[in-house]
Amino acid sequence: MSFNFTVIKEDKNSSARMGKIITPHGEINTPAFMPVGTQGTVKSLTPEDLEVLGAEIILANTYHLYLRPGHELITRLGGLHSFMHWNHPLLTDSGGFQIYSIGALRKIKEEGVHFRSHLDGSFHLFTPEKAIEVQEALGADIIMCLDECTPYPATYDYTEQSLNLTTRWAQRCKKAHRKKDQALFGIIQGGMYPQLRKLSAQQIVSFDFDGYAIGGLGVGETKEMMHEIIAVTVPLIPANKPRYLMGVGTPQDLLECTRKGVDLFDCVMPTRHARTGMLFTSFGSLVIKNAEYTDDPRPIDPECGCYTCKYYSRAYLRHLFMAKEILSARLNTIHNLYYYLNLMKKIREAIQKDSLEDYCYEFYEKQKTTFITNERTTRSLYLVNQ
Amino acid sequence: MSFNFTVIKEDKNSSARMGKIITPHGEINTPAFMPVGTQGTVKSLTPEDLEVLGAEIILANTYHLYLRPGHELITRLGGLHSFMHWNHPLLTDSGGFQIYSIGALRKIKEEGVHFRSHLDGSFHLFTPEKAIEVQEALGADIIMCLDECTPYPATYDYTEQSLNLTTRWAQRCKKAHRKKDQALFGIIQGGMYPQLRKLSAQQIVSFDFDGYAIGGLGVGETKEMMHEIIAVTVPLIPANKPRYLMGVGTPQDLLECTRKGVDLFDCVMPTRHARTGMLFTSFGSLVIKNAEYTDDPRPIDPECGCYTCKYYSRAYLRHLFMAKEILSARLNTIHNLYYYLNLMKKIREAIQKDSLEDYCYEFYEKQKTTFITNERTTRSLYLVNQ
Repeated sequence: MSFNFTVIKEDKNSSARMGKIITPHGEINTPAFMPVGTQGTVKSLTPEDLEVLGAEIILANTYHLYLRPGHELITRLGGLHSFMHWNHPLLTDSGGFQIYSIGALRKIKEEGVHFRSHLDGSFHLFTPEKAIEVQEALGADIIMCLDECTPYPATYDYTEQSLNLTTRWAQRCKKAHRKKDQALFGIIQGGMYPQLRKLSAQQIVSFDFDGYAIGGLGVGETKEMMHEIIAVTVPLIPANKPRYLMGVGTPQDLLECTRKGVDLFDCVMPTRHARTGMLFTSFGSLVIKNAEYTDDPRPIDPECGCYTCKYYSRAYLRHLFMAKEILSARLNTIHNLYYYLNLMKKIREAIQKDSLEDYCYEFYEKQKTTFITNERTTRSLYLVNQ
Repeated sequence: MSFNFTVIKEDKNSSARMGKIITPHGEINTPAFMPVGTQGTVKSLTPEDLEVLGAEIILANTYHLYLRPGHELITRLGGLHSFMHWNHPLLTDSGGFQIYSIGALRKIKEEGVHFRSHLDGSFHLFTPEKAIEVQEALGADIIMCLDECTPYPATYDYTEQSLNLTTRWAQRCKKAHRKKDQALFGIIQGGMYPQLRKLSAQQIVSFDFDGYAIGGLGVGETKEMMHEIIAVTVPLIPANKPRYLMGVGTPQDLLECTRKGVDLFDCVMPTRHARTGMLFTSFGSLVIKNAEYTDDPRPIDPECGCYTCKYYSRAYLRHLFMAKEILSARLNTIHNLYYYLNLMKKIREAIQKDSLEDYCYEFYEKQKTTFITNERTTRSLYLVNQ
């Protein structure tokens, strides 16, 4: 079955909605979080682990797979689903954000982005047409237009030029898009200027994509700015299309952006933090290497239902982390992804039961936080750490 | 139920036998291979993975766990089985081999071994009594006497003095051993001198241990010497006790030493080789990073029944290896351990069906090897690489 999105239930008190996306590889209940499988694997986990965790869709990075092992090789091996043994929905990004991340190694022109591989220094040109070609070769259920991720800070003029380029590229992507069983999403840019977000949204929406992403956030702006821009941008996207906030964020961000009407999220935070021992819990975060856990027989989070919390103590997990054991990354990743995926499940249930406000209240009570802090957003540089 | 060993079937054409060891945490069908879980985890795998692979007993290293996280901590957390969530038989070594491995950092005296931690340089004294105390605290089903692993080469005189020290330490271990639900195994030394192996065996067997290990092999001697010493030593061990060959070896070694009458094996080879991409197959070894596998859609071994071979191509496994993905270690470890554990299962079945000779013939035919080569043995230095 081809791509379809239905809003099932709208929240009374916020812009949140519960829905369902149908793709050729299965359904996704929204709002949904997509674990990141940069190089064709969600680090340390098998697809079966992801199924048990309740992941319904994962994301892979076009830039990485294009460079290694190569999209043509993946096509010869039957496409990315088959290559990585993941038979459920899959989204590939366009490579734009990764190319943006490599900074001095790339040069943006009208035709596309010239860049050098972070692996071997070889020269490459990514055009909108190429981004579609590579993503069609990979064969994900949802693919993304090539965009320029506008840096922060940027002047009004630069941001306007940049979003116009993203628009022209979106049009070329739309034209190049042949495999209609793959849904193509447009990306809205416009930096931190509400007026330019509006302009970008009008232009991108005019091409009638299968869904729309909000790009260019989590790049160093404050959390307040990010949430303001999201609040401004979401209503510009047609209500009958899925809205995908790229690369964001903390559990608080997911909750608040869901209330603003976002349907899809991805972020390396749960998986990367897992590998550095930063664990998410119902009562805030927990740094497993801390000496206080040396002898602690309790699970990471007594309220958590994940495999790691069922069978392992903080003391054992601290030992694995200190001893640099591979199992540390795996057990921590299982826990953090469970936390994120379970959060989204609870949010969906709360929308269904008209109790999202109560859920938010309870969430912040337990976490002992409010959702906006003054910290700057830091969207992960995939190249260096992921 | 306390420790018990029964020989169920003896091979007609060799000294191989099939048997069963009963321990407080379950049964072990012998001959058996024990995966190595140095620091309280078989690298990259969960206990459930090991159950699926058919592991009935695993080994943990006393030296490592004593230094980090400490045996007293593990006792407070309920013992090693509970700490690492492995509810099946467990064997701990005495720490002797690891202390031997650290070379210049240790000094052997009558009272015990003085050594410095490879982690923080702190000073420690391991006496026979201490080795038992630590292993009783860890709580494995089978524990080992402290021994001196005689280096290779060593003079006759040095080897004789060394084995005598091992004998005095064995006596002290036997005396210190309080927790009778843990079986205590003695270790036979004697270097490459058949006469001294005989002397050591007579002395060690006189203390009536629950089982006997052959130590001091795989330390740089040739394969021929190793197999000769095993052939000489096994008959010196009472037939009603399990015979454990420590730290050996290749699939060929396991097959040949089973034929010489060995019941238990451990080795880091399958797990360590997995992490460096060296995979065992029915037709010999396969180095996954080789360019020839770049596009290869076949599983590692078409005859293999493991999870990795069921779902992943050589091309994908090569990609994971080249991209330094954590999943590479895990999928390769699953394959290599399956190979070892399945080999032992086939050997047990062949003994049961009186067809071990045919099995050997077929094994060498496929592998296109004979079992003895001129290579030197290289028993793994746990400290550096494991």
